[in-house]
Amino acid sequence: MQLVGRARDQSDRSNRCTSKLYPSRSEVRCFSTSAHPSLHLANQETDTFRTVSRSIMLHQIALLATVTVLGVLEQAYFAMQVIYVRRKCKVSPPVTSGPPEFERIFRAQANCTEYFPIFLSLLWVAGVFFHQVLAACCGVLYLIARYQYFSGYARCAQGRLAPLYLSAGVLCILIGLSVTGLLVYFVPLPRFLFPK
Amino acid sequence: MQLVGRARDQSDRSNRCTSKLYPSRSEVRCFSTSAHPSLHLANQETDTFRTVSRSIMLHQIALLATVTVLGVLEQAYFAMQVIYVRRKCKVSPPVTSGPPEFERIFRAQANCTEYFPIFLSLLWVAGVFFHQVLAACCGVLYLIARYQYFSGYARCAQGRLAPLYLSAGVLCILIGLSVTGLLVYFVPLPRFLFPK
Amino acid sequence: MQLVGRARDQSDRSNRCTSKLYPSRSEVRCFSTSAHPSLHLANQETDTFRTVSRSIMLHQIALLATVTVLGVLEQAYFAMQVIYVRRKCKVSPPVTSGPPEFERIFRAQANCTEYFPIFLSLLWVAGVFFHQVLAACCGVLYLIARYQYFSGYARCAQGRLAPLYLSAGVLCILIGLSVTGLLVYFVPLPRFLFPK
Repeated sequence: MQLVGRARDQSDRSNRCTSKLYPSRSEVRCFSTSAHPSLHLANQETDTFRTVSRSIMLHQIALLATVTVLGVLEQAYFAMQVIYVRRKCKVSPPVTSGPPEFERIFRAQANCTEYFPIFLSLLWVAGVFFHQVLAACCGVLYLIARYQYFSGYARCAQGRLAPLYLSAGVLCILIGLSVTGLLVYFVPLPRFLFPK
Repeated sequence: MQLVGRARDQSDRSNRCTSKLYPSRSEVRCFSTSAHPSLHLANQETDTFRTVSRSIMLHQIALLATVTVLGVLEQAYFAMQVIYVRRKCKVSPPVTSGPPEFERIFRAQANCTEYFPIFLSLLWVAGVFFHQVLAACCGVLYLIARYQYFSGYARCAQGRLAPLYLSAGVLCILIGLSVTGLLVYFVPLPRFLFPK
Repeated sequence: MQLVGRARDQSDRSNRCTSKLYPSRSEVRCFSTSAHPSLHLANQETDTFRTVSRSIMLHQIALLATVTVLGVLEQAYFAMQVIYVRRKCKVSPPVTSGPPEFERIFRAQANCTEYFPIFLSLLWVAGVFFHQVLAACCGVLYLIARYQYFSGYARCAQGRLAPLYLSAGVLCILIGLSVTGLLVYFVPLPRFLFPK
């Protein structure tokens, strides 16, 4: 690559630009404390490389990050509903038992919170290893199912079931995408079967 | 780097390829909305760079992602065990108290869920900053310990203790790896002491 | 880019270095199983590129990883406090109700655990998409607020309120940074308004 090939390339060019054969000391810096010690880049080139690399990284995770923030906002909404029902039913912390209405909303929020890290893990693995847009769509669907689950559970215990199955189904799809993405990575399969 | 050095390199080549001195408009596009505005790459080169960068990123996290998915599958297994024991002991949500057998399994799952984000954080920091394979091995060990913890706790409260200490020990190792990895990153130490 | 431009560049150089026109088979390997099949790099160049890319990635997340590990240590401290108060009040698992002192500490830890994944999600999205140092500072502030929350709650239920509002405020700031960072990424805005 150009990074190490620079000096060689320049000497290949039959010394037309002898004054540029080695970059001046002020132009050179070690890339970062953990970079390879033999690796020196001019400042401008380093910054460009960093900008491009960062841009590529953001490009591969922007939708996942958006769905993550939407999920956080949903969790914040659930947490506020618990605070409201605590006030309404006069159940002060640290007590966690009370009228059925409070217990249903409290458990609904606890259940959503419990599945939040699982959801995020699958969203990101599926999005990075299989397909970002597909994973983000599943993520949005999951968040909608979780909203319906919370609303249904707040009305009655039976109301939670249908959206619970939907959210579990979406999680299964995300598991499938993640496993497929990892298999495609580790096992060389015919490429035309999978998105790039 | 080649990215910005392109125009300069080509002019250095004594204009043998004048028609290629500047890429045609159709060949050029802005890399992405967040890239540096002065940075233009031909389409093919951009795609190759993106493919290589993505490949490097995946290479550094593939094992961590695999352990993450295994952990999610384990959590799903625990959650299903809670559903089964709820049916068996006739404890319908939102109730969380019942016969000792139910309470043990419920607490075992709650405890594993509680530590899941902590485990994932340490797994990824240790894997990215210290050594991916070592962190992934610790991760698998942790998941085995957690499975034994759950099975032991389901039998009797004492049965949880030995695997609980094992899983705590693995977490301590992961903390050690993470802290070491971050120290090596921030503090320049003799490199031969640590894996690349 | 150099990666694909190598062969073309070398033929442009009017065959002064014919013996180097194609790298020898031993010098070449496919980058990785998931890299583009047409992409071949010499070993040394691949390793350098990987080292630089890894260094850039670590540079963009090192502070976030540090705050993450600090958060994990804080959670471990909270978990140990619950173990101590269980012994002190003689409340053996799986029981989760007992004297008010135990219930307050138990709920304090449960609440911190509940918000931990939300905090980490926001920390990382804000740090990657907006500004790493700013996000890390908010993260440290959040961890301090959570420590005060835990200590205050352990004393009395009222003692949790002030640091709870502080931690909620910090989370709101992190939400603001995340949303701003994502907006800047998706919507092209005047660049001088935001940090690079």
